[in-house]
Amino acid sequence: MISKAQVIQPFLPATLTPGEQAEAFAPSNIALCKYWGKRDKELNLPINASLSVSLAHLGSRTRITPALDGADHVLLNGTELAVDSSFARKVIAFVGLFRGTLAQPLIIDTHNNIPTAAGLASSASGFAALMLALDQFYGLQLAPEQLSAFARMGSGSASRSIFSGFVEWQMGNREDGMDSHAVQLPATWPELRIGLVKVATGEKKVDSRAGMQRTVETAHLYQSWPLQAAADLTRLHDAIVEQNFELLGATAEQNALSMHATMIASWPPLLYWQPESVAAMQQVWALREQGVPVYFTMDAGPNLKLLFTAEHEAVLSAAFPDLEVVAPFGQP
Amino acid sequence: MISKAQVIQPFLPATLTPGEQAEAFAPSNIALCKYWGKRDKELNLPINASLSVSLAHLGSRTRITPALDGADHVLLNGTELAVDSSFARKVIAFVGLFRGTLAQPLIIDTHNNIPTAAGLASSASGFAALMLALDQFYGLQLAPEQLSAFARMGSGSASRSIFSGFVEWQMGNREDGMDSHAVQLPATWPELRIGLVKVATGEKKVDSRAGMQRTVETAHLYQSWPLQAAADLTRLHDAIVEQNFELLGATAEQNALSMHATMIASWPPLLYWQPESVAAMQQVWALREQGVPVYFTMDAGPNLKLLFTAEHEAVLSAAFPDLEVVAPFGQP
Repeated sequence: MISKAQVIQPFLPATLTPGEQAEAFAPSNIALCKYWGKRDKELNLPINASLSVSLAHLGSRTRITPALDGADHVLLNGTELAVDSSFARKVIAFVGLFRGTLAQPLIIDTHNNIPTAAGLASSASGFAALMLALDQFYGLQLAPEQLSAFARMGSGSASRSIFSGFVEWQMGNREDGMDSHAVQLPATWPELRIGLVKVATGEKKVDSRAGMQRTVETAHLYQSWPLQAAADLTRLHDAIVEQNFELLGATAEQNALSMHATMIASWPPLLYWQPESVAAMQQVWALREQGVPVYFTMDAGPNLKLLFTAEHEAVLSAAFPDLEVVAPFGQP
Repeated sequence: MISKAQVIQPFLPATLTPGEQAEAFAPSNIALCKYWGKRDKELNLPINASLSVSLAHLGSRTRITPALDGADHVLLNGTELAVDSSFARKVIAFVGLFRGTLAQPLIIDTHNNIPTAAGLASSASGFAALMLALDQFYGLQLAPEQLSAFARMGSGSASRSIFSGFVEWQMGNREDGMDSHAVQLPATWPELRIGLVKVATGEKKVDSRAGMQRTVETAHLYQSWPLQAAADLTRLHDAIVEQNFELLGATAEQNALSMHATMIASWPPLLYWQPESVAAMQQVWALREQGVPVYFTMDAGPNLKLLFTAEHEAVLSAAFPDLEVVAPFGQP
């Protein structure tokens, strides 16, 4: 198994020349075809290609400055984290992949502007923003595909948060993973809307990394997941090219439900849904039966993300009073 | 494709001699490894073998008598059904497979003693009881395996309701399906209990026959279902031989959830669960975390069937106040 450091090393300059400070932003992304299952756990190489839409101005902003007191500091939304907390350790380990033997401690200051009600993972935008900030701080001048491949090592879906708009994370087949990076698709869809529905909060009992592993190891149905994902990827490309919203929505919904299906078929069973999740799904299906073109996707959690177009925003905001609406391509 | 009549014909006597009346009982059954998917829709030949436990005295009793007014009559729980209702048409068509050209109208009177709260399908016990009553009425003297294979043509899971106790429906591979019948397993488990939990009532929007077909046709994940079912069948045999309750329960629960997973991955999505179903599942999992050995299975509907042993009946009846408890092998 190749280590992260082995992969990154050849892309670093012989001598690092850190700057005085760096700051970068990366958007959150919502996968329409999900990343679910790894073929390499060290490098976060996926079993299937995935496709997402980035959430414009919603995401993470990370600032890097030298620390003057001799120790690394990790701040999240203005609060310093204990250096032995899970998130701080991951961040410091990731920084270490680039800092190498340079003995300069840093302050890593990250702010997420993701709405609290969103139920959105911040690790994707967080590691993407950190990668972009490190590139600036050390003057690495990495290519976008390299930034994406390296961000992937922090969190798989961070590979997609390097880009905006529609983004495909190509699975690649190289052992070092350097062809497993995201690319931005040359498409825009100004009318597309994503509606964040919070049905439940609270810590997940099983994080998505552990959930993914349990599914791959125990669910016989997982063996067919790559087939579903491959078919969905093709359909999503068609939907984006044709601006066919029904195809986009239906494909994203079946993909998300298929991913949850593989979890439900795991042992012990992995059900991220709450009773309220089922009620919200039933509400979406009832609206669709009434002629409202609305679909949903879900990540490894209980919350729904609705997919619809601008003309139906009013009826959906009425149906889901707490809906937070995002225009991924900006307001037209 | 071979028709039902073509398969049955060779097993009938040259001339039928109807009796004056016949009456037979067949039990309901709860599948621990589910029948889900057909390789032949005319004959109800399954894609996978299944295994169930019969519910002792709970089931259907069917009485056949000649009708004196020149027309067939179908009664269910004392009420005459319209002859063009879905159930009456199925019953009359099934009777016709045996009656052939004999122009004798009949009264088919079926009583189900399945608790109303059970959420149990009555078609399995209903067609099994009808098959047993027809065998008597026409003096067919069919072997148990033949009765099972023919009952299967009325309703797939009726093949299992010909027998009591643990029953395996062997999938067979003959084109005429005569090797696709149930067999009774030589095992008993007096302490085994099944608890019926009603979480919702009401007509299903999609019946299980249509649901099965949609799943086979639209869910990529269905392709792995036969793998799951085959693995579960082996584990269930081991569990029954070893009287290993944890293995029995865990296998049945994962099998049921995997079947539901294939439905959830279908398009349009097929979710038989209500919010209350998820709440009941969470309650089972919470009890298990507290050390109570309880598992569940579910058919194509919102209700749960709990699996446990006699010593835990009190704690489960307290946790689920409306629980209806069945002892499939009788009270010890």
